[in-house]
Amino acid sequence: MALTGVLRPGHVALRVLELEPALKHYTEVLGLIETARDAQGRVFLKAWDEHDHHSVVLREADSPGMDYMGFRVDSGHTLERLAQEVEQSGLASDCKWIAAGEHPHTGVRFRFTIPTGHAIELFADKLGCKTGDLNPDPWPDDLRGMAPSRFDHCLLYGDDVDGTVKLFRDVLGFSLAEQVVAGADGEMLIGAFLTCSNKAHDIAFIRHPEKNRFHHASFLLDNWSEVLKAADIISKKDVSLDIGPTRHGITRGATIYFFDPSGNRNEVFSGGYIHYPDKPTITWTDNELGRAIFYHDRKLNEAFLNVLT
Amino acid sequence: MALTGVLRPGHVALRVLELEPALKHYTEVLGLIETARDAQGRVFLKAWDEHDHHSVVLREADSPGMDYMGFRVDSGHTLERLAQEVEQSGLASDCKWIAAGEHPHTGVRFRFTIPTGHAIELFADKLGCKTGDLNPDPWPDDLRGMAPSRFDHCLLYGDDVDGTVKLFRDVLGFSLAEQVVAGADGEMLIGAFLTCSNKAHDIAFIRHPEKNRFHHASFLLDNWSEVLKAADIISKKDVSLDIGPTRHGITRGATIYFFDPSGNRNEVFSGGYIHYPDKPTITWTDNELGRAIFYHDRKLNEAFLNVLT
Amino acid sequence: MALTGVLRPGHVALRVLELEPALKHYTEVLGLIETARDAQGRVFLKAWDEHDHHSVVLREADSPGMDYMGFRVDSGHTLERLAQEVEQSGLASDCKWIAAGEHPHTGVRFRFTIPTGHAIELFADKLGCKTGDLNPDPWPDDLRGMAPSRFDHCLLYGDDVDGTVKLFRDVLGFSLAEQVVAGADGEMLIGAFLTCSNKAHDIAFIRHPEKNRFHHASFLLDNWSEVLKAADIISKKDVSLDIGPTRHGITRGATIYFFDPSGNRNEVFSGGYIHYPDKPTITWTDNELGRAIFYHDRKLNEAFLNVLT
Amino acid sequence: MALTGVLRPGHVALRVLELEPALKHYTEVLGLIETARDAQGRVFLKAWDEHDHHSVVLREADSPGMDYMGFRVDSGHTLERLAQEVEQSGLASDCKWIAAGEHPHTGVRFRFTIPTGHAIELFADKLGCKTGDLNPDPWPDDLRGMAPSRFDHCLLYGDDVDGTVKLFRDVLGFSLAEQVVAGADGEMLIGAFLTCSNKAHDIAFIRHPEKNRFHHASFLLDNWSEVLKAADIISKKDVSLDIGPTRHGITRGATIYFFDPSGNRNEVFSGGYIHYPDKPTITWTDNELGRAIFYHDRKLNEAFLNVLT
Repeated sequence: MALTGVLRPGHVALRVLELEPALKHYTEVLGLIETARDAQGRVFLKAWDEHDHHSVVLREADSPGMDYMGFRVDSGHTLERLAQEVEQSGLASDCKWIAAGEHPHTGVRFRFTIPTGHAIELFADKLGCKTGDLNPDPWPDDLRGMAPSRFDHCLLYGDDVDGTVKLFRDVLGFSLAEQVVAGADGEMLIGAFLTCSNKAHDIAFIRHPEKNRFHHASFLLDNWSEVLKAADIISKKDVSLDIGPTRHGITRGATIYFFDPSGNRNEVFSGGYIHYPDKPTITWTDNELGRAIFYHDRKLNEAFLNVLT
Repeated sequence: MALTGVLRPGHVALRVLELEPALKHYTEVLGLIETARDAQGRVFLKAWDEHDHHSVVLREADSPGMDYMGFRVDSGHTLERLAQEVEQSGLASDCKWIAAGEHPHTGVRFRFTIPTGHAIELFADKLGCKTGDLNPDPWPDDLRGMAPSRFDHCLLYGDDVDGTVKLFRDVLGFSLAEQVVAGADGEMLIGAFLTCSNKAHDIAFIRHPEKNRFHHASFLLDNWSEVLKAADIISKKDVSLDIGPTRHGITRGATIYFFDPSGNRNEVFSGGYIHYPDKPTITWTDNELGRAIFYHDRKLNEAFLNVLT
Repeated sequence: MALTGVLRPGHVALRVLELEPALKHYTEVLGLIETARDAQGRVFLKAWDEHDHHSVVLREADSPGMDYMGFRVDSGHTLERLAQEVEQSGLASDCKWIAAGEHPHTGVRFRFTIPTGHAIELFADKLGCKTGDLNPDPWPDDLRGMAPSRFDHCLLYGDDVDGTVKLFRDVLGFSLAEQVVAGADGEMLIGAFLTCSNKAHDIAFIRHPEKNRFHHASFLLDNWSEVLKAADIISKKDVSLDIGPTRHGITRGATIYFFDPSGNRNEVFSGGYIHYPDKPTITWTDNELGRAIFYHDRKLNEAFLNVLT
Repeated sequence: MALTGVLRPGHVALRVLELEPALKHYTEVLGLIETARDAQGRVFLKAWDEHDHHSVVLREADSPGMDYMGFRVDSGHTLERLAQEVEQSGLASDCKWIAAGEHPHTGVRFRFTIPTGHAIELFADKLGCKTGDLNPDPWPDDLRGMAPSRFDHCLLYGDDVDGTVKLFRDVLGFSLAEQVVAGADGEMLIGAFLTCSNKAHDIAFIRHPEKNRFHHASFLLDNWSEVLKAADIISKKDVSLDIGPTRHGITRGATIYFFDPSGNRNEVFSGGYIHYPDKPTITWTDNELGRAIFYHDRKLNEAFLNVLT
C-alpha cells in the first residue's frame, strides 16, 4: 500500500460552554452537517466531503478546549500494532481502549496522552457515508455558511514538543514538513508541523509552558475566494474574528481565524503544497517568525500566539 | 511510515519531432525550467515546486508520444522489493534495470512493460534541488508561462486495462480512486484512475484497441484563475487548444487541454479532492460518460477521446 | 452631471413558451428575484444588486424571443427630449408612448423600432427598492443559483446595423466601444458594441439578414470563480449549455452561455474593462473573428453565431 | 452624450523623498510603466490599461504628500465652462491656468484649491497611447509587480468637507455614492465618496482638522486573487504593509494598503459595484464606522485613520 499506517485526522472533540450557540456556529457559520446526538448530549458533525460519519464532536462543559483528537489508521491490524508500539515507546501515558460504539458508528479507539499533554486517539473503523460514489456532482446542493470540504488539522500548544514530535515521527510514522527553531544555532524546536499524508500538516505543535492547550481546529476550503466569503460571513453573522484573510509563510496556506461562541479558535484555509516524505523539512528561524506565521504583515501577533483554550 | 512504497509520478519521457520548438513550448508556454541536457541531446526539465532534479524528459524522434513514465519509491529497499514483485507477478514484461546516471542525478531505475503496453519505471534516488527549505517565500520570482507547480499524472490508452490495473493495485499498492464502467451490468472497466497518494489520480488508463498510446501529461495549477491565465496564454502564444477551460466530472478537476508543437497533449488543471485508500471508489457509468469527462457540456468529444500520440 | 442622458439597460421583455419552467429557470438557475406579476400574467424579476423594481419581464407566447428592451434615462426632461429627437431622426419607426403603470411601479415609456427591427424603450421613472442603503452588507443572504448582481446587456441581430448604430450614437449618445469589420478595407460593420456608461457594452448588434432577432440577454457576475459555479449549476440542473466557460476577445469578458427552457440564450459573465467616451474604438477584423468572439478556441462556432430567437 | 463633463481621475502628482527608490517602488512593486521624464526631473508613469500618456507624476521633495490631482473632462468646451463655473462658485481659491505642455503630451490644465485645501486640476487633452485598439489581447505581456490596470481614485483628508462636497456635486457634477455621518442625528458629514462615473468612487474625502492632507492613491486590480498576489509581493519585496488583504464595507472593495518608500500610502483593490446617479446614496453611521472601513475586523484602526502625508 502506498498510504499506510495513520491515514488522517479523523475527529476532534471540543468542549463548548453552551451547546445551542455552539451548534448554530458550527452548522450555520462554519457549515458542518449534524449527523448524530448521543445519550450524553454530545453532538457529532461532519464536513460535506468527508465519507466518515463525523469529524467534530461537541460536548457542553464548564470550560472550552479540546478533549481529544483522533486519527484514522488503515486497518484493525495497524491499530493493534500501533497501540502496542505507542505503549512500548515510553512516550505516551494513560493508554487505554475505548469501546466500539462509544462514538456512534465507530469501532474501538486507542487513546493515549502525548508528552505535550494532549489526548490522542487511533481508530480503524468508522462508518462511511454511502452517498456520492456513483456519477457524483462536484459539490452538493444546500451548502451553508463557509462550507469547508473537510476537517483538516489541529494546532496544539504544550511543553514537551520534542517528546511529542518523537512519538509522531518515530512511532506513528509522521513526517516533519516544517519546523520553527529558536536559539543562536536553531537548537530549540518551538514549532512542529507534522503530516501523515500529502498535506502540509495533519497536526502541529507549538512549545508553550503549559500542557494540553488548544490553539485551533482547521477546516479546508477550496480557494482564496472562499476565504473572502468566509471573512464576509464572519462579519455578516457577527462572529469574533481573530485574524485574516491572510497567508501563512508556514505551509503557504491562505487563511482566516475566528472564534466559536465559547472561545475555541477555528481556522478555514485553502492552498498549501503537496508534501512527500522525502521532501526536505522546511525550517523557519525565529528571526523570521513574524513572516513564518503571517506572511503579509510579518509581525508577531500576541493575541494569535497566546489566546488558547 | 504513513506514505510508503510508491510515492509519486517522478518523470515522463516524451518524444518530440523537433527539439527547439518543443523546448520553447515547455519552457515559455507551459513554464517548466530546464535543468540539464545530456550527450544524447535529451533535455531535462522540472516544475518550480518540485524538489527533484527533473520531471519531464524530451527527446527528438520521428514520431511523438511517450517513451516511459517513472515513479519514485520511498527507498532503495522498496525499489528492490517492488522490482522483484513486479517480475514475479506475471503481469509485466521486458523487465530490466537502467544504470544509475542514465538520467542525470538519478539512481538505478527498474523498467517494465505493463499489460497496456506502456513502459513504466520505478526509482528511489534522484537528486533534490536544495533551494527553498529555509524561510521560503510561497512562490519564486521569475515564473514564466502557465507555471504549474508540479508534473501531476499521465493518462494512457491501451488494451489490457484489467491487467494493468491489477498490477498497479495488487503489486504497486495504488488505489482505484475512480472508474468508468460499461455494459448492462457495468461489467467492463473502460477507465481507471489510480492513485498512490492523496491526489485523485497519479496515473490513469482508458481501454483502447491499441497498446501503448499516450493521451496526455498533466501539470498542476493552484486555482481556477490560473486555468484562465493558461487559456489566455494558449491564445496569446498561438498554441493549439484541445478543450477547456472546463471541469471534469471524474476527479472534479478544473482543466484545460492543449498540444505541444509535436502533437503531444498537455493538461494543466487545478482542484480535485483529497483521496484516502478507504474512500470508496467512485464509479461512472457509460450512460453518464459525457458528464464524467466534461462536466459542463456533457457531450462526448471525439477529438478528445481519439487523438493520441 | 457626469453621467447624463441614457443611464443603463433597464429591462428586457422576453417571450417564453411556458411560464412555470421559465420562472423556475430564471429564479432557481439564474437566481433572479420575482418582484411582481400582473393581470396579463407577466412576471417581473430583478437581480439582487439592482435598486430598480424589475429588469426582466417574462410573458408566455407561442414563440420565444425578445419583445423589447428598455433603457433608463436620467430625468423626465431627458425622456421628452430624447423622444423628440428619436422621432425627428428619421431612424426610428412605430414611435409611441406607453402609459405609466403598464409596467408595475414604472412611469411612462417611449417605445420605438430601430433600423434592425427591435423595439427599444426609454423611461425615466421606476420605483427603486429601498433596501440596502444604510450600513449595508456587501452581499445579501439567501442568494440562489448563479445570482448575478445585475442585468447587463443584450446582443441583438438585425439587418440595418449601420442605421441602428447611427441612432444609438448620434441620437442616444452611446459610444462605440468595439466594432467588428469585414471586407478588404474593413468597410462593412458587422458587429457593434455600444455603451452609454463605463461598461464595455450596454447593447450590441450583429449584422444578419433578418430583422428583430434576439441572440442573448446577459447578466453580470463578480468574478471567474462565479463563472465556474454557474457552469457547475448548468450541469447540476441539467440546463442546455451553449458554450463556455471561456473568454471573449471582444470586451475581454469571462463568460458562459446557456439556454432557458424556451430556447432564449442567456449569458452570465464577469470582467471587462472601464470604458470612457474618449477611449478609441477597438476594431476587430473579420480574419480575427474567431479570436474576437471566443478568445481561447479562436474558431467560429456555427451554433453560437446562428441560433437565435 | 451619456458620459459628459468630468470623465475620470486623470493624474495624481506625488512628492517623494528620493526619486530612485520611489521609481523602483512604483515600477517594480506596483508595476506602473514609466512614460517620460522632464527637465525638472519629474517622472511620469501610467498603468497598463490606460490609454492616456500618464496617470502618476513623481517629484522629489523634502516632504511626501500630494501636490495635486487632475481630472479629465470630455472636451475643451467643457473645460472652459467648468473653469468659469468653479471660479464663480465662490468655493474654490487660487484658480489658475497651467500652460499646455507643462505635463508632457498634455493640454492646458485649470488648477484650483478646494475647501479642504487640496489642489485639483481639470484638463481636456492628454495624448493617448495608440496601442491596443486593433484585435487586442486581453492583457499585455511583460507585466511586472502588482500590475494594476488603472489609477482609480484618491482619498484626501481636510477640514471643510461640506464645501468640497458642494463643489464636486453642484459644480463638477459628481454623485455622492456613499457617505459616513456622525452625531445623534447623523448631522455631520465625516466621510464622502464621490463619483463622476459608474465606479463607486473617483475621489473621497474624510473630515480632519488640517487642510490638504493625503491619505492614499488607489489602483485597480481585476480580482481578489490579484489582491493576494499583491500581498505576497509586499512581503517578497519587503514593502511596508499598512493593512489587508481585507474588504471595505464602504464600496465593497477587496483591498490592501501599503506605503511607498517616502511614506505615501498606496492601495490596490478589486471589486465594488456599478454606480448610477439615481442610486440612493449609501449612508454609514458612526456607530458602524469600524465595519464601514474594514468590513471583516470591524475595528477602528488608528494607524490607518491617522497616518497621512
